[in-house]
Amino acid sequence: MIDARSYAREHAPRFRQQYEALLRIPSVSTLPQHAADVERAAQWLAGDMRAIGMDSAEVLRLAGGRHPLVLGEWKGAGEAAPTVLLYAHYDVQPAAMEDGWDSDPFEPVERDGRLFCRGSVDSKLHVMSQLKAVEALLASPGGAPVNIRVLLEGEEESGSETISAFVAQQPERVRADVAVISDGVVLAPDQPSLVYALRGIATMELHVDGPVQDLHSGHFGGTLHNPLQALAEIIAQLHDAEGRVSVPGFYDDVVEADAAERALLAHTNQWSEREWEAVADAPARHGERGYNTQERIGLRPTLEINGLGGGYTGPGFKTVLPQRAMAKISCRLVPDQDPQRIHALLQSHIAAITPPTVRSELRQLDMGSRAVTLGHDTRAMRAAAAAYERAWGVAPLYERAGGSIPVTFALQEVCEELVIMGFGTRDGRAHGPNENVHVESLERGITAMIHFLQTIGRNGELA
Amino acid sequence: MIDARSYAREHAPRFRQQYEALLRIPSVSTLPQHAADVERAAQWLAGDMRAIGMDSAEVLRLAGGRHPLVLGEWKGAGEAAPTVLLYAHYDVQPAAMEDGWDSDPFEPVERDGRLFCRGSVDSKLHVMSQLKAVEALLASPGGAPVNIRVLLEGEEESGSETISAFVAQQPERVRADVAVISDGVVLAPDQPSLVYALRGIATMELHVDGPVQDLHSGHFGGTLHNPLQALAEIIAQLHDAEGRVSVPGFYDDVVEADAAERALLAHTNQWSEREWEAVADAPARHGERGYNTQERIGLRPTLEINGLGGGYTGPGFKTVLPQRAMAKISCRLVPDQDPQRIHALLQSHIAAITPPTVRSELRQLDMGSRAVTLGHDTRAMRAAAAAYERAWGVAPLYERAGGSIPVTFALQEVCEELVIMGFGTRDGRAHGPNENVHVESLERGITAMIHFLQTIGRNGELA
Repeated sequence: MIDARSYAREHAPRFRQQYEALLRIPSVSTLPQHAADVERAAQWLAGDMRAIGMDSAEVLRLAGGRHPLVLGEWKGAGEAAPTVLLYAHYDVQPAAMEDGWDSDPFEPVERDGRLFCRGSVDSKLHVMSQLKAVEALLASPGGAPVNIRVLLEGEEESGSETISAFVAQQPERVRADVAVISDGVVLAPDQPSLVYALRGIATMELHVDGPVQDLHSGHFGGTLHNPLQALAEIIAQLHDAEGRVSVPGFYDDVVEADAAERALLAHTNQWSEREWEAVADAPARHGERGYNTQERIGLRPTLEINGLGGGYTGPGFKTVLPQRAMAKISCRLVPDQDPQRIHALLQSHIAAITPPTVRSELRQLDMGSRAVTLGHDTRAMRAAAAAYERAWGVAPLYERAGGSIPVTFALQEVCEELVIMGFGTRDGRAHGPNENVHVESLERGITAMIHFLQTIGRNGELA
Repeated sequence: MIDARSYAREHAPRFRQQYEALLRIPSVSTLPQHAADVERAAQWLAGDMRAIGMDSAEVLRLAGGRHPLVLGEWKGAGEAAPTVLLYAHYDVQPAAMEDGWDSDPFEPVERDGRLFCRGSVDSKLHVMSQLKAVEALLASPGGAPVNIRVLLEGEEESGSETISAFVAQQPERVRADVAVISDGVVLAPDQPSLVYALRGIATMELHVDGPVQDLHSGHFGGTLHNPLQALAEIIAQLHDAEGRVSVPGFYDDVVEADAAERALLAHTNQWSEREWEAVADAPARHGERGYNTQERIGLRPTLEINGLGGGYTGPGFKTVLPQRAMAKISCRLVPDQDPQRIHALLQSHIAAITPPTVRSELRQLDMGSRAVTLGHDTRAMRAAAAAYERAWGVAPLYERAGGSIPVTFALQEVCEELVIMGFGTRDGRAHGPNENVHVESLERGITAMIHFLQTIGRNGELA
């Protein structure tokens, strides 16, 4: 037998093949027509857990759940050893060629040192980093130094309700000394980073209705409030001239950062700005006045329009005055904002600003999630920092991330410590067309996971 | 041989069958995949022109034209008799079950005294009223009392550019003493009306671009101006609190109505309001302050949003911060507004109000058309009034219509008099789902057309 890192190096080509096999399964959780694909991905993962030598692997279907959880366990380190829970998600965002992909979104293709495929960075990279690190440890002398639970979910892209319910209902199946949430990205390909805070999210759909049917815009244009126009007028009132959300009460519960934290983020901000220029590159920056880019991403809440629809948008022109208009809206939340309260505040505000000429309705799309703050200096965070330094050769910086990992809140309740270890890169276009990973990301992820689990096995004593 | 009206009564069942056969051809002019259907409709119409005894019938394909014109001629009345040009369009708006149709949009179905099918009222009712009136006259003793040109187009729903070019290039093939534009609707099923003015139209597409690609709304939300939000903010600035279009110069060329005309329209307004309640029924009226519903429809210009699109609008939720957003915009125009100038004014205004955080572009979708005023008391208008009274048993009222008939402007140049004779009803849902006609509309249309042509054959002397 050889040590875990040597094993991982030796088996890297097979690990890559398995990663690509998983990528080919279009496990899109938000589209009902992909339900069988999500199921297929779950079975594939349970099969791999068994193959690598875990004691058990179950595909769990919960009442009310849309897609299964996959739970694998290995208890070979003994009762005295700590237990680590590894979490990642195997579902992916929708993807279609017409969104602007240069190649089939569900066929991995390597170009210029990157592997392009939906789910490559978000989050099958993390699923495979976990499983292959566990495989390498179980194959090495003495096995893994910690007991391991791997909990994978298939509804992360649609709200993580099922896993949150599972954790609440059966905490003993999830409980661990340390939980690792593998998701997200590092600051730059050669600058690892540790996320110590995540924004929460509340998602909504706003409907505006006017006439009782679609009308001819010649016969009726000018005599009623066009729902598309009314929707635009409502949306235009949701921010003020300072870039602040103008919903009364929206900032009531927001925890302001202290000077020390703003100094820490000022250091990270150069990376955020560089990334912004490389990836977003809009004509000008825009956002809440008084905050830099890193603060706008991690420290401040937002209200974004994620979709607008209504009337005729195909080729040519249709002189329709439509019956209704729709907007998808999300709020990114920071401590201590509550997604239910934010929805209620928006609901009241939109009802108040809806003119009497139309009807509006703001529907909640899921339960949402609160923001999470983990702290910089826990045992698990120190072990994670060492693991990144081993895999990258560079010490990580600390940052607040703008995205959400809905399950984090539930896991905090049943695990003593929580750490987030993401191995993607920010140019990976998560959720967009041409999603990709750098080809070395998987190996770095596996190396970091092995090192982290070994450190926790020494009760956090750094090597 | 029998007289024309008796012939029409006798052949009514066959006329209805032919009307339904034409309705089954989905001649959607704005969708490229229906080009062959539009061609098929043109061939069907030319075949019918030949079958009813016209001297010639041609399917005309013009350079640059997308769909053919159909031109039929009959010169049997002799050189001393007047020539009447009959115009209608055989193309239709797009239609799909998912828009809310209760039955296949291209299969005519009778329910409750109405015939449901895309194109039933707009405008195959008019095409068939013309052709079957001509058939009845040619089959009656002495034939028709006027020389007849029937000119049918297949691009009315996409701007009528080809026919306008044809009229400008070959005026001698179109020239007539009187032109009848058969299109539009009467005020109520039992209250015929004569339209003496039409609004023009200018159609545009507004694009707003922000980042260089779709982004994850968590990773970038709050750091740039969301194009969907920016589009909404621009749209919200296009009207003021009085319901007026707030584009500088927009009303510069608008001809205000005098007191006599506003009194005439006040009489028609009760019908416009009744129709509004029956068909639109929005929560409240809305429009330019200081004008009633008939005036808002016929006398005042508008700016309408006909479509909004961008981001993710499917089921569930996608946390995308999209690269771009789009709106379809149209302006309904009144005398003496010019569609080119209106486009230029909007272009300048939108450029001026577009913030530096996004890029915008306002594209013209077609050449548009100016408004048309015909006058109330011409020879042709009196003949038309008598024809409606014969077909309905009720004298018509006069109104300004809100829709556009782009070809009107071109025909005014080559025909001495112009009259618009529409036989549809306003509850016919033109352009919307479940488009329909009252089953008696075709017979009334044929009767009115026969009577009108007979009156013109007597040089306008009323019977």
